[in-house]
Amino acid sequence: MGSTFGHLFRIHTFGESHGGAVGVVVDGCPPRIPVVVEDIQRELDRRKPGQSAIVTQRKESDTVRILSGVENGLSLGTPIAMLVANEDQRSRDYDAMREKYRPSHADYTYDAKYGIRAVAGGGRASARETVGRVAAGALAKRVLGDLWGVEIVGYVLKVHDLWAEVDPETVTLEQVESNIVRCPDGPVAEAMIARIEEVRKAGDSIGGIVGCAARGCLPGWGEPVFDKLEADLGKALLSLPACKGVEIGSGFGGTDLTGSQHNDAFFPGDQPRPARTRTNLSGGIQGGISNGETIVLRAAFKPTATIMREQETVTTRFEPTTIQGRGRHDPCVLPRAVPMVEAMVALTLVDHALRHRALTGR
Amino acid sequence: MGSTFGHLFRIHTFGESHGGAVGVVVDGCPPRIPVVVEDIQRELDRRKPGQSAIVTQRKESDTVRILSGVENGLSLGTPIAMLVANEDQRSRDYDAMREKYRPSHADYTYDAKYGIRAVAGGGRASARETVGRVAAGALAKRVLGDLWGVEIVGYVLKVHDLWAEVDPETVTLEQVESNIVRCPDGPVAEAMIARIEEVRKAGDSIGGIVGCAARGCLPGWGEPVFDKLEADLGKALLSLPACKGVEIGSGFGGTDLTGSQHNDAFFPGDQPRPARTRTNLSGGIQGGISNGETIVLRAAFKPTATIMREQETVTTRFEPTTIQGRGRHDPCVLPRAVPMVEAMVALTLVDHALRHRALTGR
Amino acid sequence: MGSTFGHLFRIHTFGESHGGAVGVVVDGCPPRIPVVVEDIQRELDRRKPGQSAIVTQRKESDTVRILSGVENGLSLGTPIAMLVANEDQRSRDYDAMREKYRPSHADYTYDAKYGIRAVAGGGRASARETVGRVAAGALAKRVLGDLWGVEIVGYVLKVHDLWAEVDPETVTLEQVESNIVRCPDGPVAEAMIARIEEVRKAGDSIGGIVGCAARGCLPGWGEPVFDKLEADLGKALLSLPACKGVEIGSGFGGTDLTGSQHNDAFFPGDQPRPARTRTNLSGGIQGGISNGETIVLRAAFKPTATIMREQETVTTRFEPTTIQGRGRHDPCVLPRAVPMVEAMVALTLVDHALRHRALTGR
Amino acid sequence: MGSTFGHLFRIHTFGESHGGAVGVVVDGCPPRIPVVVEDIQRELDRRKPGQSAIVTQRKESDTVRILSGVENGLSLGTPIAMLVANEDQRSRDYDAMREKYRPSHADYTYDAKYGIRAVAGGGRASARETVGRVAAGALAKRVLGDLWGVEIVGYVLKVHDLWAEVDPETVTLEQVESNIVRCPDGPVAEAMIARIEEVRKAGDSIGGIVGCAARGCLPGWGEPVFDKLEADLGKALLSLPACKGVEIGSGFGGTDLTGSQHNDAFFPGDQPRPARTRTNLSGGIQGGISNGETIVLRAAFKPTATIMREQETVTTRFEPTTIQGRGRHDPCVLPRAVPMVEAMVALTLVDHALRHRALTGR
Repeated sequence: MGSTFGHLFRIHTFGESHGGAVGVVVDGCPPRIPVVVEDIQRELDRRKPGQSAIVTQRKESDTVRILSGVENGLSLGTPIAMLVANEDQRSRDYDAMREKYRPSHADYTYDAKYGIRAVAGGGRASARETVGRVAAGALAKRVLGDLWGVEIVGYVLKVHDLWAEVDPETVTLEQVESNIVRCPDGPVAEAMIARIEEVRKAGDSIGGIVGCAARGCLPGWGEPVFDKLEADLGKALLSLPACKGVEIGSGFGGTDLTGSQHNDAFFPGDQPRPARTRTNLSGGIQGGISNGETIVLRAAFKPTATIMREQETVTTRFEPTTIQGRGRHDPCVLPRAVPMVEAMVALTLVDHALRHRALTGR
Repeated sequence: MGSTFGHLFRIHTFGESHGGAVGVVVDGCPPRIPVVVEDIQRELDRRKPGQSAIVTQRKESDTVRILSGVENGLSLGTPIAMLVANEDQRSRDYDAMREKYRPSHADYTYDAKYGIRAVAGGGRASARETVGRVAAGALAKRVLGDLWGVEIVGYVLKVHDLWAEVDPETVTLEQVESNIVRCPDGPVAEAMIARIEEVRKAGDSIGGIVGCAARGCLPGWGEPVFDKLEADLGKALLSLPACKGVEIGSGFGGTDLTGSQHNDAFFPGDQPRPARTRTNLSGGIQGGISNGETIVLRAAFKPTATIMREQETVTTRFEPTTIQGRGRHDPCVLPRAVPMVEAMVALTLVDHALRHRALTGR
Repeated sequence: MGSTFGHLFRIHTFGESHGGAVGVVVDGCPPRIPVVVEDIQRELDRRKPGQSAIVTQRKESDTVRILSGVENGLSLGTPIAMLVANEDQRSRDYDAMREKYRPSHADYTYDAKYGIRAVAGGGRASARETVGRVAAGALAKRVLGDLWGVEIVGYVLKVHDLWAEVDPETVTLEQVESNIVRCPDGPVAEAMIARIEEVRKAGDSIGGIVGCAARGCLPGWGEPVFDKLEADLGKALLSLPACKGVEIGSGFGGTDLTGSQHNDAFFPGDQPRPARTRTNLSGGIQGGISNGETIVLRAAFKPTATIMREQETVTTRFEPTTIQGRGRHDPCVLPRAVPMVEAMVALTLVDHALRHRALTGR
Repeated sequence: MGSTFGHLFRIHTFGESHGGAVGVVVDGCPPRIPVVVEDIQRELDRRKPGQSAIVTQRKESDTVRILSGVENGLSLGTPIAMLVANEDQRSRDYDAMREKYRPSHADYTYDAKYGIRAVAGGGRASARETVGRVAAGALAKRVLGDLWGVEIVGYVLKVHDLWAEVDPETVTLEQVESNIVRCPDGPVAEAMIARIEEVRKAGDSIGGIVGCAARGCLPGWGEPVFDKLEADLGKALLSLPACKGVEIGSGFGGTDLTGSQHNDAFFPGDQPRPARTRTNLSGGIQGGISNGETIVLRAAFKPTATIMREQETVTTRFEPTTIQGRGRHDPCVLPRAVPMVEAMVALTLVDHALRHRALTGR
């Protein structure tokens, strides 16, 4: 029931970490949009394991196959199914997980919910689940770019206690991709990489913050009350594995300001953005609706739960025991989280753009 | 399209600030639940304007009327419609708003979206819209309490730069209601009240953070992938007016920790919570599913946009101008946001509890 | 859970027959549509009890009140709530119903489902529930007419065994409203009226068939696979009280033909209908999508369950007993079903027109 | 947008006739249900082309592959993806279709809707789309059988003008499967087979009526107002290719009766069906909710649109022309429609059973 996202541009993902395949069905993609398999593969490659020294060394080629909804490179308007086969499956790494609950993982809660669980690789709770999101997000980006000129750039803003400086108005994909940690602030990026290496060697893990800018949105996207753009973007990001916080614009920091410091003064602009704001503490969204300024978000990712140290836990029969992580895991999910965040932002925006078009014809 | 919340316990709200009425239709309330109008009224009274010296002095009795779905004090299982008439309408206070866009309000974005706008009182973008949420939330609390023993307590955690100390495991409604700012930390509450008074006199405004604890949830609520409990709670809170950030458990602060510091060790418990955790940095949710520990959330509310100072803006014909707030407004929304946060948390949890029951019969 | 209809033009109805009020919230109405209370009232008057000698003599003025979503006669794009108070409540007529289940009514199934039931007037199972549909349908008609030039005309086609001749391409509202049975075939209408009078005097009831034509739909409305236009129209009509069958175009009769007799040959037309068909056995829908020809439907309504004769039944404690109808009921629902059918067709079409606009911008 | 069916037991289908594959994702299947690939394959074999002399001779093995959601033969509660590869693709049979619109097919309406169309095999409008429904329906049957003891039997009731006699209370799968036309009335079945052969030789096609009985449903399934069981079953069946009419219980024929003839008298029964009815003209549904009696439906399927005779039509540039069918097609869809009807009935009932369980815990 929880594997669907979106109202008009709807995606349905499926697949366990160590089953036959992971994939996604995209229903509601407008017709005659160019669907370029290389565009989709490029995003999947940014997400895939084994891409650099600081992520998990699990090897998966993650080659996408498009099964339906496309003819001669154009979307048909019908469901687009995309599949990625599972390959590198060392299930023996997971034997301990069959009998013991890993702390701060989903093992216990899945058993509590379903009374059954795909043990190997975390099943549906694995970050491998995000393959479908990223593939669908690549389509969403294409639709947003082609129909409305929107551009979405995610970046690592913080790793552990290391903060980068990034300007959401100007940061580019090239800057983000210029290093393996995906932080466009070069010197800080180097420190982040060193920190991740260090933590990995210590058998520990760290988290951080991914920022994201969506530039070029038209004023008017988002729906009052429950489907505010902040709300749907927040849900989108908080649905990512390990995400425990989201803020838009000034976010939590904005609570330190007064209204006179925080309000974004208007000044005249040009169509299709006839009113512009001097500052953007609103993060491009006012009253839940885009105002045409850059949408600015931040998402907090907790330290990876799998660590190579002994920890207190219980067995599946609820007896006390200890457990130590095995297998190949990310010491820090941040570099791979960047394309996931971009995908979720794109999926949210394209859905609202289509909802707005239904209402107004624009 | 955006005025519906929930899948199985669904609410539909309606009403502009200065129209005939505001209200809500609750569809999917289980049958034979006691629906006590006083319970609902009590929550509305916590939300209503004019309740204390530090909130807006607009006077509305906010008396709720139940129109359907209840007979002899019990829910029928059919839609429960609840209505609150609008009363104290000084529309002349809003004359300036007809011609000028208030900075960081929804005036401009509504016009951009719809090409039309209910000028007086902010229309649907007014916090008055939350009447329907709070009334429905009172029902949700009752269902959660009666069927599963869940208890939800919200509280003010921060006003401007003043932080309170609150223990989510033990904080009570009585402590929260013991002062007009709804902060259970007495000395800090006094400072908060003084700060709000001070800011109001200066014609300015401030924001802050509301915390919320949901105690007694069963393990197993929440759906993998997109409808994770964090995601739906996050959406719920970010849909509240002025909310710009949400975090669950350790949230943004958790990014300063390593995995070995952050993981919640398991130890044996008793049914229906056979595994318990030594710490609760997960905030009661792991893999998007409740683990039976207290669910802990925080929501950031920006400073109120309406201030009594002159600000730069544009007219509705996009010419430069200035504007100064008029009317009666909250210098700080936090005290009134507490019942709103509780309502949204209750609505999210009851929906997931019913979804879980559909899946498992429990 | 079952009181919502539509995806983009969504309605939520509420209200029991003898509660405080019945009503509807319309969410997703495009902005700046003229909302004329007289248009809505006119449709409600076609539905209301007591309008003629052949319908129930229960007296309700059914005066509609618009509570939200409209300013200066134009829709705001926000939820439009409409309310009709309940007036003529002779609950004593229903005392027998408290203890006995009326055959072929919903008394038993509501008790089986909910364990509780609004006894007076059938509660939510009363045809009074359709007030909300008809009010919302009046808005839907207006949107369809203003934005796309669509016209919807319903008519009584059969009462008991009396069949009328009606041409869906040319039948007008005036013809339909020219007599109290709403059958545009004058001589047959007189026979129908006589038959209804006769059956009423005998304490019995009869059913029949309502036809409906939707003219002026553009080609392209409807979605492949599950949300075919036939499927959503079928659901819409079968959701009406007492409706037990629906057919589109040739329907059940079409099974007597061969493909060479049944296929609709194409010939060139003009934009926006560049292909036209010589015949219209498809009823304006092919592959679940409108082809620009007149959409033609028929809905079967069973004889009213309430009759003034003694019938075998059981008590609410499941002991054998007998029951005899009391109260004021329709001997034949057909004349009042016509505006209900039109409303459901309009609600289905406007929703699909908006879904199509989201997909294509047209 | 239209490829999803169900609220709690949700299916998402995908795939064009001549693309890479067709398939389905089932989200919301309860956990720990035995998922037996042979059960699913058996239903697909009843649907597949080439199964007998009276259906299309296109050859597809239609072998299903389960990609996710199942471990050790049990459902995990997570999405179950099932795939069937496309094999026998003679796209050259479809060359004429590229330039001409086939009468009463979906060619023109798809082009009108999307401005693009998968030409070969009808793309998404092909009956091949039903593979996903039938595979998902096999799961739905298993859930209904295992959890509630429900049994669903479909059968051919009419081919062209040949009517069979079938008792919905007693008809068995074995009787249905005893001949290739799937009509349990032996002598009529023989006449039907002869008629189909005859029509095929004449290059023409015929339609008919499929009946379906669902036995063992509990009282209480279905939701008042829009999601009545009749409404959702009607939508389910009318979404099948070529279906132009649906009736429940007495249906259209019931309009010839009076209320005193039509009402179903109650008499005492036993738990869980404490009230039974003497007759079943209601078809097991009263007020939109199941009453525990056998649910009885009939669906009308028009004659297949593809015929081997010359017909008037237009080109895709809207010039007059003629077209003659080519390729391998069903002269009569009825035998293959039986498993499709059963699948849609099962999918509707399992969804409502789960909705009811959410509301009441039963």
